[in-house]
Amino acid sequence: MSKPLFISFEGPEGAGKTTVLNILIAELQPKLGNKLVATREPGGNPISEAIRAILQPEDDNGLEKRTEALLYAAARRQHLVEIIQPALAAGKVVISDRYVDSSLAYQGGGRDLGVEKIWQINQFAIDGLLPDLTIYLDVPSELGLARVTANRKGKIDRLDKESLAFHQKVRQTYLKLQSEFSDRIKIVDATQPLDKVVHDTRELINKVLEDKS
Amino acid sequence: MSKPLFISFEGPEGAGKTTVLNILIAELQPKLGNKLVATREPGGNPISEAIRAILQPEDDNGLEKRTEALLYAAARRQHLVEIIQPALAAGKVVISDRYVDSSLAYQGGGRDLGVEKIWQINQFAIDGLLPDLTIYLDVPSELGLARVTANRKGKIDRLDKESLAFHQKVRQTYLKLQSEFSDRIKIVDATQPLDKVVHDTRELINKVLEDKS
Repeated sequence: MSKPLFISFEGPEGAGKTTVLNILIAELQPKLGNKLVATREPGGNPISEAIRAILQPEDDNGLEKRTEALLYAAARRQHLVEIIQPALAAGKVVISDRYVDSSLAYQGGGRDLGVEKIWQINQFAIDGLLPDLTIYLDVPSELGLARVTANRKGKIDRLDKESLAFHQKVRQTYLKLQSEFSDRIKIVDATQPLDKVVHDTRELINKVLEDKS
Repeated sequence: MSKPLFISFEGPEGAGKTTVLNILIAELQPKLGNKLVATREPGGNPISEAIRAILQPEDDNGLEKRTEALLYAAARRQHLVEIIQPALAAGKVVISDRYVDSSLAYQGGGRDLGVEKIWQINQFAIDGLLPDLTIYLDVPSELGLARVTANRKGKIDRLDKESLAFHQKVRQTYLKLQSEFSDRIKIVDATQPLDKVVHDTRELINKVLEDKS
């Protein structure tokens, strides 16, 4: 059985995370076949989807920010147990669109709850399971939000609506996490042309695939 | 404005908690009027009810025990913010059927997740708001379960179905919490006749009402 590998993708709004991920997953698919498991939080299982419905309601439901943080941790836990852990146990390569660093950046930084407190409840949720590699696509908040506004006309979600200040706090937290955990979290400059962003990301993935094989 | 007061009720299955609560709330209502707020977790707000639907599904939905603990903490937080905090801020007497000790006993003890870990995620949820008084109705697990089976024929919920060993761990944790936090948590022997259980509980409530008025 081949060695398991766990990669997470992170980034603020407008970093192009989903676009880059789709391109690289399409490239990896022929090489890895059913050894590749591409997933995204909250993960498509019924429990996490039910939690997502509370987190992203049609109308404002008065969700308090600590409730929100606990619900993200709960959805993460269930996604981990139902999708990520079984795949890793079977020796697969798991690529997840968002994982624990999203909560640290959005709830800990953006919502001012503090990275340390969000880390505590998420340690309970992930029980020590950190990615082998986290790719962080970095983009200044002004540019990221300008991209979101241009791309998703009429489809702005709750987080998109947050102020520029919120997004700047999210980015600053991501950057702080990256410098603190630089062995695990690798930064890619997402202000570059898409081809170059994909190239840099591909290099990081290929390196960790080689190291682990 | 009168002084706020926060009382929680705790107990394992079959302690008669709801019966005792209903009798005492009916007695307190004429005295306290709209100064009394009787509530129960998860609290009847839309977010907590949506969380309850995940926690108590019709069929087994594969809910993992850490996910369960995080969801209880999330529902508690929203109940606290929407119901308990505003009532206390208005100087009311809040009586809640279950609060944080339930998670410590059921998830920490019963599910073997550890009281310390459950306490950490619930500290985040309650942010320092502990009851002025917690009344713990104590009953041996064998007797409690025998009562549940006799009373609720055909209406057994998921927790009722747990083994006797589970309920014994819940009770042991309640007893340990009570001895550790004996200033806050007062024990009532719920093997006594109902009249006496109500009497002992009434005394505890009257005492704290006098102290606080």
